[in-house]
Amino acid sequence: MSRGILIVLSGFSGAGKGTLMKELMKTYDNYALSISMTTRAPRQGEQDGREYFFSTREKFEEKIAQNGLIEYAEYCGNYYGTPRDYVETKLNAGMDVILEIEIQGMRKVKKMFPDMLSLFVTPPDAAELARRLRGRGTETEESVMKRLNTAVLEAEGVEDYEYIVVNDDLKRCVEEIHGIVRAAKRKPVRNEEFINSIRAGLKVLAKGE
Amino acid sequence: MSRGILIVLSGFSGAGKGTLMKELMKTYDNYALSISMTTRAPRQGEQDGREYFFSTREKFEEKIAQNGLIEYAEYCGNYYGTPRDYVETKLNAGMDVILEIEIQGMRKVKKMFPDMLSLFVTPPDAAELARRLRGRGTETEESVMKRLNTAVLEAEGVEDYEYIVVNDDLKRCVEEIHGIVRAAKRKPVRNEEFINSIRAGLKVLAKGE
Repeated sequence: MSRGILIVLSGFSGAGKGTLMKELMKTYDNYALSISMTTRAPRQGEQDGREYFFSTREKFEEKIAQNGLIEYAEYCGNYYGTPRDYVETKLNAGMDVILEIEIQGMRKVKKMFPDMLSLFVTPPDAAELARRLRGRGTETEESVMKRLNTAVLEAEGVEDYEYIVVNDDLKRCVEEIHGIVRAAKRKPVRNEEFINSIRAGLKVLAKGE
Repeated sequence: MSRGILIVLSGFSGAGKGTLMKELMKTYDNYALSISMTTRAPRQGEQDGREYFFSTREKFEEKIAQNGLIEYAEYCGNYYGTPRDYVETKLNAGMDVILEIEIQGMRKVKKMFPDMLSLFVTPPDAAELARRLRGRGTETEESVMKRLNTAVLEAEGVEDYEYIVVNDDLKRCVEEIHGIVRAAKRKPVRNEEFINSIRAGLKVLAKGE
């Protein structure tokens, strides 16, 4: 069983990350979505261990002190972070684990997991992003403008990602993400055992049998 | 029209590179095989501009002096090299150009084309490589042993390649190579125009229409 790949997925709000992840998980069985830990209160219908691991500030800070989080941030007075044990367990079971986090988180994770894969999801153009945000019907115009302004800042960091993926068509985009992950499995660093075995075999044969 | 990708393909003698390239070119129309220039005499059936560009030593050394070769080497008293103009023309026409060269050549090309893609092709194991070499029926046992010894040395450099591809099944392996090339097209460096256009569009929208 070879270890899975840690995949960081970021993208503009409204790029369709959630739908993409759902479709990816439905289509292939090698992916696991990382579950974040948070100190914010559960919302209606949210379940501990499904949407989030809900935690007190005390316990969260204990986790930080124990180096039990791969990355964390404070946002609107609440902590959000990625528990290391969940990720490690899945990776060791051969699953490819997806973290849906933002660029600051991506940079932190990269330091700890240099072999991780990073993808940035974008709609085909800016107008389409605005259409999707407004089309949700749940956002005020003020909130749409705020998200667009955030997108301007996020767009500055796109080159820090290994891959940029355009979400124009759900199925096509899911195939593209899966293709990128498959390619990543062919990196020498993920095939050390195979390389060593070829090397050993060649040495034996080259000496003459 | 976006510029094509320069792909360096190396691999053990007997890994099946030639057959893979033929199948890849037959299946997809985005690839062009680079044609080497050589000072060795044409063999029966070889045609100038198809197998090789045949050249005199004088003209070859002129090419070197003009920096007209991406890489070159001398082997058994003959020069072999990759003419730059052919490669550039194809890349600019949007074709993905494949150079079938060895590791020293790959390292030289990497300096001039840092965004190139490098792949190393290997059979599933060492025994299969020996079987294929012997199965050709054209190699003396001495030549097989020589090739195996070369393979031992070549195997040391495998980690310098971006991808290692196992040629166990022709069609599967061709798909894998094509998948790796497609993934490479999603790198930010190959999507600068798109990224700039998204950035500009977001800035306009974020200011309010």
